[in-house]
Amino acid sequence: MINELLRNKKTNFILEAHNAVSAQIVEEAGFPGIWLSSLSMSASWGVRDNNELSMSQVLDIVESITQKVTIPVLFDGDTGYGDYNHFQQLVKKLENRNCMAVCIEDKLFPKTNSFINSEKQKLENTEVFCDKIKAGKDCQRNESFCIIARTETLISGGEMDEALHRAHAYADAGADAVLIHSKKDDISEVQTFMSLWDKSAPVVCVPTKYSATNPDLYSELGLSLVIWANHLLRASLYAMQKVATKMYEAIDIPEVERQIASLDEVFRLQGAYDIRNEQPITK
Amino acid sequence: MINELLRNKKTNFILEAHNAVSAQIVEEAGFPGIWLSSLSMSASWGVRDNNELSMSQVLDIVESITQKVTIPVLFDGDTGYGDYNHFQQLVKKLENRNCMAVCIEDKLFPKTNSFINSEKQKLENTEVFCDKIKAGKDCQRNESFCIIARTETLISGGEMDEALHRAHAYADAGADAVLIHSKKDDISEVQTFMSLWDKSAPVVCVPTKYSATNPDLYSELGLSLVIWANHLLRASLYAMQKVATKMYEAIDIPEVERQIASLDEVFRLQGAYDIRNEQPITK
Amino acid sequence: MINELLRNKKTNFILEAHNAVSAQIVEEAGFPGIWLSSLSMSASWGVRDNNELSMSQVLDIVESITQKVTIPVLFDGDTGYGDYNHFQQLVKKLENRNCMAVCIEDKLFPKTNSFINSEKQKLENTEVFCDKIKAGKDCQRNESFCIIARTETLISGGEMDEALHRAHAYADAGADAVLIHSKKDDISEVQTFMSLWDKSAPVVCVPTKYSATNPDLYSELGLSLVIWANHLLRASLYAMQKVATKMYEAIDIPEVERQIASLDEVFRLQGAYDIRNEQPITK
Amino acid sequence: MINELLRNKKTNFILEAHNAVSAQIVEEAGFPGIWLSSLSMSASWGVRDNNELSMSQVLDIVESITQKVTIPVLFDGDTGYGDYNHFQQLVKKLENRNCMAVCIEDKLFPKTNSFINSEKQKLENTEVFCDKIKAGKDCQRNESFCIIARTETLISGGEMDEALHRAHAYADAGADAVLIHSKKDDISEVQTFMSLWDKSAPVVCVPTKYSATNPDLYSELGLSLVIWANHLLRASLYAMQKVATKMYEAIDIPEVERQIASLDEVFRLQGAYDIRNEQPITK
Repeated sequence: MINELLRNKKTNFILEAHNAVSAQIVEEAGFPGIWLSSLSMSASWGVRDNNELSMSQVLDIVESITQKVTIPVLFDGDTGYGDYNHFQQLVKKLENRNCMAVCIEDKLFPKTNSFINSEKQKLENTEVFCDKIKAGKDCQRNESFCIIARTETLISGGEMDEALHRAHAYADAGADAVLIHSKKDDISEVQTFMSLWDKSAPVVCVPTKYSATNPDLYSELGLSLVIWANHLLRASLYAMQKVATKMYEAIDIPEVERQIASLDEVFRLQGAYDIRNEQPITK
Repeated sequence: MINELLRNKKTNFILEAHNAVSAQIVEEAGFPGIWLSSLSMSASWGVRDNNELSMSQVLDIVESITQKVTIPVLFDGDTGYGDYNHFQQLVKKLENRNCMAVCIEDKLFPKTNSFINSEKQKLENTEVFCDKIKAGKDCQRNESFCIIARTETLISGGEMDEALHRAHAYADAGADAVLIHSKKDDISEVQTFMSLWDKSAPVVCVPTKYSATNPDLYSELGLSLVIWANHLLRASLYAMQKVATKMYEAIDIPEVERQIASLDEVFRLQGAYDIRNEQPITK
Repeated sequence: MINELLRNKKTNFILEAHNAVSAQIVEEAGFPGIWLSSLSMSASWGVRDNNELSMSQVLDIVESITQKVTIPVLFDGDTGYGDYNHFQQLVKKLENRNCMAVCIEDKLFPKTNSFINSEKQKLENTEVFCDKIKAGKDCQRNESFCIIARTETLISGGEMDEALHRAHAYADAGADAVLIHSKKDDISEVQTFMSLWDKSAPVVCVPTKYSATNPDLYSELGLSLVIWANHLLRASLYAMQKVATKMYEAIDIPEVERQIASLDEVFRLQGAYDIRNEQPITK
Repeated sequence: MINELLRNKKTNFILEAHNAVSAQIVEEAGFPGIWLSSLSMSASWGVRDNNELSMSQVLDIVESITQKVTIPVLFDGDTGYGDYNHFQQLVKKLENRNCMAVCIEDKLFPKTNSFINSEKQKLENTEVFCDKIKAGKDCQRNESFCIIARTETLISGGEMDEALHRAHAYADAGADAVLIHSKKDDISEVQTFMSLWDKSAPVVCVPTKYSATNPDLYSELGLSLVIWANHLLRASLYAMQKVATKMYEAIDIPEVERQIASLDEVFRLQGAYDIRNEQPITK
């Protein structure tokens, strides 16, 4: 349960997935949870991170993942797919699919990725966003379902004071944790936030820009959850681009074959041998 | 058009994709077409290559791809998702999504991957399969839509004579090309097939097992289309497994960052900067 | 729970629905359960009752219904959407959507409606079908989930002996109930079946052809569940055809308005006034 | 083509559908076009008319309809499913499904039905809405695709002047027609609008509240298209409620059977007999 990761004493790291097989890879690597990233789902579908994927499409991905892995999934819910009413639909449908955690951010639907044109992105009214959090908490049926409230205050050019004010308001509204997002190249903003935070809720961060931070620092600052938010997608893109180029040039296919997963590994990952009576014929 | 690739004089190579971004990578690498693989779509969704993805799910992927790329897509239609009637629904829905080529194989629904337990897989009755091909051709609205008929005769342990007989029957039934599939480690079976083939239709092959073949040989044998059927998926799995392990060990994240695509490249691929007024803020 | 309807002592009647609003109407009329008919879902989507709707499409309908009603839904699972493996996927996905009962029939995928060309429809091998039932029972996570096994023996021209043999085999395989289907204009076949049945499992019938049967007879025969299988769809078609014709002729629209639901009733049914702060403005 | 209905000289009436079979009934009654209503799709799915259905869900309905009927479909696009970017996705996907007309309204996403709490609903900024219209026109590939711009000015309590100003702006932005919506019990507002309109674009109206208007008046006023916006859904609800009650009371099922469509009519509508070799066995 993401809930447990938020509440245990140590700092937990979770890794991004964008489909069932990447989720399985996250689990097999040893991570205790999965970040189901909106950016990477969008990118893998060839669309922008502006809510171009419909709720139906992302929920289909969610179900494929929760049927595949045993570790918990934290769903990147963007702004909640509309108003409080849509967020309630989302919460119910996530629970149906055994996804027991969602993160929503205080921007307006349709959102834009935090690292694009960020100064121009408007924040949702604090009260309206608190109402959205409450609406989500009101309709959850499973008590371990958790809602993480992410503030984009610093991303959109706001002050630390406002970030803290919003984070408190979100925790008061019932958020199970707050996520403080920063676009700085170092962890300084998060550090300041943590020094001023009253620990009324666990804190989550996403070191996409400040990944060079010493890993020990996250726990020293008291962060509960650290999200590596897009790395498997980026790993796959890099590798696919290299292999596609080599295949196109077609110099030495067997050499390419040595740098990609075997067919047998594909079969293992997809559970091909779990089906009754099936035996592999490939080496 | 896949149709044109089948009819021009040279041997064309196309590469597998399993989602929109991998399709885009195929296009950007220079390939003239995309093989939308059933194996790799299934594997990326964490399910077996046994028609566990519904027709709705694969059609959603198709649309995301054809909206993204300009090169033609050859859809791996397995056995046609049921009988002739379902194949007709499939053809109409592929055309709606601007996917103008489908490959179907002469096995029974639900199929199993060709390289798993292959001897036990039964072939469809020849006449029934010819009827399915005709049904597809009957209902296409776009004259350039093409249907490739794939025989699994050799895969399932049948004789070359039957493979040739079936291939002829399929061409007579209206198939725009035939695909001769082989699980041998060398191209010998395909070579024999080509030496006996009367050229009544273009021939396609899938050198998954015999990828070490000298690339020039495909054209010497007179093959029209060669499909690299699963390499981008395998490239992505290999890279994601390596990166997930490194991230879990968290020794040197910046070093990992140098071996994966940049965030900016993700944005470029998904068209983030095509949206009005957006300017990148990231390096 | 359908499970409880099968096990309580009385004969329960449930009524067909094909979407969420018809399901709600079934509940509001007082019925203790809903038959989510494959025929009527197909017909409302304009397709044949031959598995033309994908599993994704019907599961989407299921979720819309279970989110709307409080009475249990018995899902018409046709042949289970493929082999035992697909049936297992179906069971898991029905449970995800809080649909805790499915009925599957012993025909081959893709099926044809029982009342069309019935003599030509082949039955599934008994052992294979029992294996499918077991596979479903094996993978259910909720103990109250129930699987009803429907035999089409009499529909396809088989003998009463075979129908009984199959029904016993299905009950032995773990089916929570058996459904004996008959296309006769009277209940005689079902009557014979019940007189020979050893009560090893509850029995369900579908009096589409013998709806003129005295209602008391169902309980006298010891039937546990009687399914009115398609009546709301048929009611809606008849009414829509009449109203469409009147509207086209456009003689007296206000008179038409008196014979259709008010706009306010539409709003009530869809819960328009449940949303915060909304007050009706219409009479 | 809806385009042609807008441009021919007479006043055309089209009728609401909410799924493929109701669309077929509209066609069979003689209407030249279909209004694919957001209200009635929502209500049939048991959800509110507040964009609770995802774009994926409504597009699936669109495809089922355009595969079934030959008359054109005017899709009720609400506010365009987000901003101009989402509207562009919608236009492309409608074209893919051979739906060549969409109507969008000048409210904010997520919208609320026009007849609920209407005074509180805010209008979109005129310039932003014009930009959305242009964005849609820019990306259509089929020249006969048409976009109807609907103003909710009068619905939300605005003045006639603003309604006219907006309608002109929308026509100037490229809208193929404007829809003037009124919640009055008589046609007076539409009458006033038409008397002041400079005919720079065809005008559409929706007499849900003023259905008692003399049918001849629509053409006298110069309206191009009149939409009966929800009558088949309402007809079906009324009939289903009556039949459900009768079935529950189970007094006289054969009498009910005479007031609903026959099973054979269901089969005819769904094309059951179009499939090869099928002969009806039912009377």
